Amino acid sequence: MRITSIQNPRVKHAVQLRDRRHRDHSGEMLVEGYRELRHAVDSGHAPTTLFYCPEFFLGSNEPALVDSAAALGAALIATSKRVFEKLSYRDRPDGLLAVAPQIGIALDTVAPRDPALLLIAEAIEKPGNLGTMLRSADATNVDAVLVCDRTTDINNPNVVRASVGTLFTVPVCEADSTAALQMCRDRGISVVAATPAGTEMYWDADYRGPVAIVAGSEQYGLSDAWLDAADTRVRIPMHGQADSLNVATAATLLMYEAVRQRS
Amino acid sequence: MRITSIQNPRVKHAVQLRDRRHRDHSGEMLVEGYRELRHAVDSGHAPTTLFYCPEFFLGSNEPALVDSAAALGAALIATSKRVFEKLSYRDRPDGLLAVAPQIGIALDTVAPRDPALLLIAEAIEKPGNLGTMLRSADATNVDAVLVCDRTTDINNPNVVRASVGTLFTVPVCEADSTAALQMCRDRGISVVAATPAGTEMYWDADYRGPVAIVAGSEQYGLSDAWLDAADTRVRIPMHGQADSLNVATAATLLMYEAVRQRS
Repeated sequence: MRITSIQNPRVKHAVQLRDRRHRDHSGEMLVEGYRELRHAVDSGHAPTTLFYCPEFFLGSNEPALVDSAAALGAALIATSKRVFEKLSYRDRPDGLLAVAPQIGIALDTVAPRDPALLLIAEAIEKPGNLGTMLRSADATNVDAVLVCDRTTDINNPNVVRASVGTLFTVPVCEADSTAALQMCRDRGISVVAATPAGTEMYWDADYRGPVAIVAGSEQYGLSDAWLDAADTRVRIPMHGQADSLNVATAATLLMYEAVRQRS
Repeated sequence: MRITSIQNPRVKHAVQLRDRRHRDHSGEMLVEGYRELRHAVDSGHAPTTLFYCPEFFLGSNEPALVDSAAALGAALIATSKRVFEKLSYRDRPDGLLAVAPQIGIALDTVAPRDPALLLIAEAIEKPGNLGTMLRSADATNVDAVLVCDRTTDINNPNVVRASVGTLFTVPVCEADSTAALQMCRDRGISVVAATPAGTEMYWDADYRGPVAIVAGSEQYGLSDAWLDAADTRVRIPMHGQADSLNVATAATLLMYEAVRQRS
């Protein structure tokens, strides 16, 4: 099948999925880009539809990835350049854009190893930050990322992009904070909160036991609920003029300190 | 002075400064937002013009900041809401946008303390990443950030935004890589390069002496010139599916490891 009209209903539907309301209504998301689609396919997250435009392919591995997506059941739709430009939400499209079911697992299916390492991201506003947190969570092999009290939808195309597809390699769960905290309590997972008001330096805390690292909203920091419930409140030393770091950066420092201590 | 027309030449000029060509031609930049302007003013980086619209102010400290900018010599221009919306490049304007001279110091005026701690950012493409690197450079109190072989202009409004104004609190220098490397050699500053091909874990390297941390392009990583010249090549362990971290995140891990070792 090849589409050359931007009026095609499938094209229109895919473009609508940039909008959260449409995503939530159809239960779908967009996955654009080679690396992003590669991680989705390798993780068995099967797209339902794959739009592709060979004229935009940057390398030679794209046809094999298209075949892999088809083998997982994706309907393949070739498009003209003009149609792909309409579909793409990137400055430089690479000729691959899929529609896939939304991601996310239920809280009661989160299965931490022993000792657990979880990342809890509370009320993150910017898709770029949430995506970067997922990328670091993949790199540090956390058991799951719990996205609490969501303001940014984890299925946002900019989360997919900033995560470079690691959204599909790390178990991600949307949960409310009360339920996430209860889960930590039930499983004996210690809560380490990153906050400018922390009394301990982040590198002095002990991450070798089961631990959940919690970082919160760019604008307001962590809520009192998490700050009060935390077993440890750690701070990142600030030696300059500004009073806080980027939230994804802060979370990554703690995750890597856990990796360092466990290595 | 109060402007109510979006056709006003000063408004048009400010809007043009979103464009790099215009910025480079006039030698000016835009500084939007309370925190960003606060850092500029506190650092003595005087705006030439400050547009303000009290109807957008979010707090009660804005008038004092407007006064401080005026004391540094900024021409104050009140605007209508409509004009400010035209000026603003943010989703949620906060009523403050200044035109200021471009930032940047010459390489031969970089004055590291003893032991030096420099960040060298090679060919960073995304303004958000460069801004986040500056924010972390402020927090770790590096002596200067050398932006080598620029692809992103340090005076880009999105660098200002992602840096939350720390662009004005950290000495920043645009330089070519050859000159920056020579400076390190001349001053006995050891070069630590972050690369997936590194042989040493980043936490095993020694950052207590004079050191320059080098991180490079999102897409291609560091150039061979830096990799070959580096005294130490360190890697960040990757335990997941993806093969690299966000470049700002990676640079921050090394900068904070230096802070940890020096504390």
